[in-house]
Amino acid sequence: IVYWEEDIDVAVIGGGHAGCEAALACARLGMRTILFAMNLDSIAMMPCNPNIGGTSKGHLVREIDALGGEMGKNIDRTYIQSRMLNTAKGPAVHSLRAQADKARYKEAMKLVLEKQDSLWIRQSEVVYIDTKNGSVSGVLTAPGGYYPCKSVIICTGTYLQASCIHGTYRVQTGPGGMQAACGGLTDCLRDLGLPLRRFKTGTPARVDGRTLDFQKMEEQKGDEHIVPFSFENSPDAIRRPQRSCWLTYTNERTHAIIRNNLHRSPLYSGDIRGIGPRYCPSIEDKVVRFADKERHQVFLEPEGDHTFEYYVSGMSSSLPEDVQRDMLRTLPGLEHVQIMRTGYAIEYDCIDPLALDHTLQIKQVKGLYSAGQFNGSSGYEEAAAQGLIAGINAALSIKGGDPLILDRSQAYIGVLIDDLVTKGTNEPYRMMTSRAEYRLLLRQDNADLRLTELGYKVGLISHARYSRFLRKKEEISQEIERLENTCLSASAEVNEFLNSLKTSSIRSGVSLAELLRRPEISYGDVIAMGDLAAIERPHLDSAAGEQAAIQIKYQGYIEKQMQQVEQFKKLEQKLIPQELNYEEIPSLRLEARQKLSKVRPRSVGQASRISGVSPADVNVLLVYLEQYRLCKK
Amino acid sequence: IVYWEEDIDVAVIGGGHAGCEAALACARLGMRTILFAMNLDSIAMMPCNPNIGGTSKGHLVREIDALGGEMGKNIDRTYIQSRMLNTAKGPAVHSLRAQADKARYKEAMKLVLEKQDSLWIRQSEVVYIDTKNGSVSGVLTAPGGYYPCKSVIICTGTYLQASCIHGTYRVQTGPGGMQAACGGLTDCLRDLGLPLRRFKTGTPARVDGRTLDFQKMEEQKGDEHIVPFSFENSPDAIRRPQRSCWLTYTNERTHAIIRNNLHRSPLYSGDIRGIGPRYCPSIEDKVVRFADKERHQVFLEPEGDHTFEYYVSGMSSSLPEDVQRDMLRTLPGLEHVQIMRTGYAIEYDCIDPLALDHTLQIKQVKGLYSAGQFNGSSGYEEAAAQGLIAGINAALSIKGGDPLILDRSQAYIGVLIDDLVTKGTNEPYRMMTSRAEYRLLLRQDNADLRLTELGYKVGLISHARYSRFLRKKEEISQEIERLENTCLSASAEVNEFLNSLKTSSIRSGVSLAELLRRPEISYGDVIAMGDLAAIERPHLDSAAGEQAAIQIKYQGYIEKQMQQVEQFKKLEQKLIPQELNYEEIPSLRLEARQKLSKVRPRSVGQASRISGVSPADVNVLLVYLEQYRLCKK
Ligand SMILES: Cc1cc2nc3c(=O)[nH]c(=O)nc-3n(C[C@H](O)[C@H](O)[C@H](O)COP(=O)(O)OP(=O)(O)OC[C@H]3O[C@@H](n4cnc5c(N)ncnc54)[C@H](O)[C@@H]3O)c2cc1C
Ligand SMILES: Cc1cc2nc3c(=O)[nH]c(=O)nc-3n(C[C@H](O)[C@H](O)[C@H](O)COP(=O)(O)OP(=O)(O)OC[C@H]3O[C@@H](n4cnc5c(N)ncnc54)[C@H](O)[C@@H]3O)c2cc1C
Repeated sequence: IVYWEEDIDVAVIGGGHAGCEAALACARLGMRTILFAMNLDSIAMMPCNPNIGGTSKGHLVREIDALGGEMGKNIDRTYIQSRMLNTAKGPAVHSLRAQADKARYKEAMKLVLEKQDSLWIRQSEVVYIDTKNGSVSGVLTAPGGYYPCKSVIICTGTYLQASCIHGTYRVQTGPGGMQAACGGLTDCLRDLGLPLRRFKTGTPARVDGRTLDFQKMEEQKGDEHIVPFSFENSPDAIRRPQRSCWLTYTNERTHAIIRNNLHRSPLYSGDIRGIGPRYCPSIEDKVVRFADKERHQVFLEPEGDHTFEYYVSGMSSSLPEDVQRDMLRTLPGLEHVQIMRTGYAIEYDCIDPLALDHTLQIKQVKGLYSAGQFNGSSGYEEAAAQGLIAGINAALSIKGGDPLILDRSQAYIGVLIDDLVTKGTNEPYRMMTSRAEYRLLLRQDNADLRLTELGYKVGLISHARYSRFLRKKEEISQEIERLENTCLSASAEVNEFLNSLKTSSIRSGVSLAELLRRPEISYGDVIAMGDLAAIERPHLDSAAGEQAAIQIKYQGYIEKQMQQVEQFKKLEQKLIPQELNYEEIPSLRLEARQKLSKVRPRSVGQASRISGVSPADVNVLLVYLEQYRLCKK
Repeated sequence: IVYWEEDIDVAVIGGGHAGCEAALACARLGMRTILFAMNLDSIAMMPCNPNIGGTSKGHLVREIDALGGEMGKNIDRTYIQSRMLNTAKGPAVHSLRAQADKARYKEAMKLVLEKQDSLWIRQSEVVYIDTKNGSVSGVLTAPGGYYPCKSVIICTGTYLQASCIHGTYRVQTGPGGMQAACGGLTDCLRDLGLPLRRFKTGTPARVDGRTLDFQKMEEQKGDEHIVPFSFENSPDAIRRPQRSCWLTYTNERTHAIIRNNLHRSPLYSGDIRGIGPRYCPSIEDKVVRFADKERHQVFLEPEGDHTFEYYVSGMSSSLPEDVQRDMLRTLPGLEHVQIMRTGYAIEYDCIDPLALDHTLQIKQVKGLYSAGQFNGSSGYEEAAAQGLIAGINAALSIKGGDPLILDRSQAYIGVLIDDLVTKGTNEPYRMMTSRAEYRLLLRQDNADLRLTELGYKVGLISHARYSRFLRKKEEISQEIERLENTCLSASAEVNEFLNSLKTSSIRSGVSLAELLRRPEISYGDVIAMGDLAAIERPHLDSAAGEQAAIQIKYQGYIEKQMQQVEQFKKLEQKLIPQELNYEEIPSLRLEARQKLSKVRPRSVGQASRISGVSPADVNVLLVYLEQYRLCKK
């Protein structure tokens, strides 16, 4: 320690997507907060894909917004293309996705942080987390500054002891040549007894847009009618000219080049030890694992409005530079491509998330939280979601409130965190719709209905926003009522309209809701028919109308899923006392006893999801808990 | 070598201010050019002060623009405050200076590079420069890519084997945590026999603008009537809202803190070995060297329009963080300041510029040029100026044209380069008006008149721009003629006006030029009086009018200086054959013989400026050259 700084409440280590949300949440909840980053220019940096959202990730961003986080607003400020994905399928899998102007995204988020009261930003490497009696007491920076604090949130992302690798080239830096955090934090965490691991991820080359022949690719335009990420934005307020992405494909020549050079890959030579993400594989991985696939999609995505750099989505690789160049040049439209930045893999230290509880606190050290890539996840949205929850809980714990824990039926964020802390992960974890059991309830369109109330209670949603939200809720119920109770009489005009939609005509009066339930009929059609029949209707926010329509249209499915949730909640609400000693439950199988002792689930529900805990074990546990409770009384 | 790339003409190592101009010049002259940078995000980065221009540096930028370089245009695109300095003094020392939006400056320059035909940008570390028979033949990157080429321009700035230091903290990175170039280039240069050195420079802290109390400082606004840096821009085309800078001062408390902590400075402890710039001293240097000075100016300068970071100009320091904090907090308005990034010193490898000739080619290796901080200079503008000249000469040499060499009477750029290659430097060299002998001729306002012709001949000035330039020249002579030949008769109105200017009235008719030569009367006054007298005048570009006025007003001084230049040119034009063997001139003093052999001056004029060469030696040389020439015939 060279010198002391003033006391603060929370120190956030890292300015990535996790660190930004964590720091904002803490500061907005009144905590004196400092965010540390190796380099202030890395704040909210996108080291990989230049976009936010996408399948299931879009859900996370909407949920972050509904809870009062920043990511949704920031992409709304800086998007250069916006699309709702999967619109051909049901609303459960509709996902919002936007290309970002990477540089502007970073700049805008840093400005939000800079403007935030009670938040300070400091470029410095944290090398030590100090504890007293098992609780966090301060952090120490590399130049010797000691910051006494009550809570620390680790959001070190891909920087801890990071190395970047392609071919035989290896250099000890964080992403994109940023200084890695090698000053001692890993040792400190190991000394605290935390289970650390080494993961890896990778990124494709960035190429010179002038050397691309877009005529040989398929254009992917942005949506005409955009949907903002933030529930606080209207489409009109953020409308702007959009950029296109471009689709091309790998082919047999691409795959041949990769196969012929596999021996030169650091992955296959054993030079990379870190464990990579199965669901974000490198192109060499894909070619090996899906050997019979004739082609893979490749998207060319602009990195911003003020650069010609393009991101080659789908071609993540750590093959040597010449192989990357040669394989890219086999793609239609990329025959003359020039690489500007080579693709690479990155290895970094992270934690086994089984060491965390649902608040994202590290069980062994009071006041020590962690979020993002450090927790074994991958992806900006996953990081931001965790950052928000860790930040909220760090603040609530200091303020003495109940923690915020979202369960699997409330949010994708709940699924994400429950998966991490219950099942752990052996590779960088990413969100996927298939991981959510209650997909039909956890839609992107109703994230506000699910979570704004909670955000308001926590204190991140302003009173004004909450009032607007209540008004919207009211509008939705009124519209549902109106649709259920308004009868459309059979008329020639209406039936003609129905015929044009290729759906059967009506003989007698039918409620608008009943019509809406027909697969061929959209909410817009119902409105149109109402207008034909001169049925009066109140002026409605378009999102509220759509919401009412979805609730009616999918009512049956939704109700069924809500019943499942009720079942689920039963076990979820059977909380397990934290002092429970699993060694004292003799009838548990040994493996179950060990796993339960390690994870220390908060509920029987969580216990049932631990791998290695069987339904029989769960029954034993239930019986034991019953006795335990009676004894206690 | 892992793989080969296609042949190119020129490889530029570095994307700083030198590298950007060098690469643009080469590509614009038709060379197939690649610019390498450790990190593409470092392109045109300003690691220190967020501004361009200033005393004598503003001249450099205007000259760069007149020759067809980019720096002037780029600051015009991204300035957030513009001022003409020293307007109270004569036009020779008027200097243009602009605050930049740092992030946007970088972004805009990178976009210019990306758009440039025949130029490619590559993120990669160059570790080896290959030569064949004393000529450059290619470069090798760290991952093993070999690029055959005809010319290389080294613009490695402050990155070669760089270390950043404050207090006892030292880390091996380039500026601001960017990856340093430690992969072998230094060794390669040493193996080529080049004289390398270690210099250092430093930067102050960046602070949180929210924690500044501007009411305690003096506001420095931008000019109402701005002058663009580029001769191609009109004020109207680039007018925009401006930001203020703020002036405060150090005081005895500041100095006491510094003095009491000097033992903790890496400079005084001997931890920093590199040689720093005398003319950009750190605050600890200033306090020690000017011990009797009661206060030093400190400017708070905004780093951009989209950030609250402020640069604390004048407080460059490598003292420990806590000392930096404590000393800053003694400044009025900074009582509660929070540091966002700590100030630091940086050490790096560079070359003794005596190894270069006036084209910025390294004498020992044909085709190897260097520019910028690597040549022992300091400052963005100095770097850009050298980059431009090195780029032009590398291209001209490949194309087989005469080199572009500016002498000391033509441009500050000429002074800069002549100083470096003739006198060498023992510390980072920076431009100063006092270095220029012919200041009255080398004004910022006439940089176009001095250099556009040359830029056009070289090929960097378009035909259209050249035509506009000729038109302006024509306008200037016409206006001079008009002012000389237009007589203003004595009238009551005119004399009343003259009285209001506190200058004597006229009795009979007087030419407008004669009036203009009076110190109290400006060009605007002359125009006003002409209007009073209803003298017709042609519509004139305002810059052309001002130029005519300056030429008339300072005619006497200018003519005198032009005579001096003629004297100067005499010795300058006495070229020395490059094969001359100084050992064969016995009557030269030993020291002079050694120095002359080392520098190999191109003219007797240059020889006379070498330190250690006396006027007597110059005479000996003149006599010898006369005989030598006769012998040759
Ligand atoms: C090469 C690469 C490829 C990727 N590929 C994919 C992909 O294909 N798909 C995908 O979904 N995701 C991918 N990602 C992951 C995605 O970028 C991250 O998940 C996301 O950025 C993580 O956010 P984070 O906030 O956890 O960490 P980061 O964004 O990594 O931010 C970490 C922050 O911590 C700071 N920091 C670290 N240590 C310290 C310390 N000791 N002291 C002070 N500050 C510190 C850093 O300066 C930085 O500000 C990739 C990332 C990289 C680098
Ligand atoms: C901390 C600091 C303080 C300073 N203080 C002042 C000051 O007070 N006053 C002042 O006038 N000037 C100051 N400067 C100097 C000013 O920043 C530089 O003079 C100017 O930026 C030099 O420009 P350049 O083009 O020579 O090099 P730089 O701007 O340093 O750019 C060098 C480029 O070379 C690249 N590079 C280096 N090695 C390799 C390699 N082997 N392969 C590929 N790419 C490579 C880098 O990535 C970078 O793009 C300071 C600089 C620093 C860093």
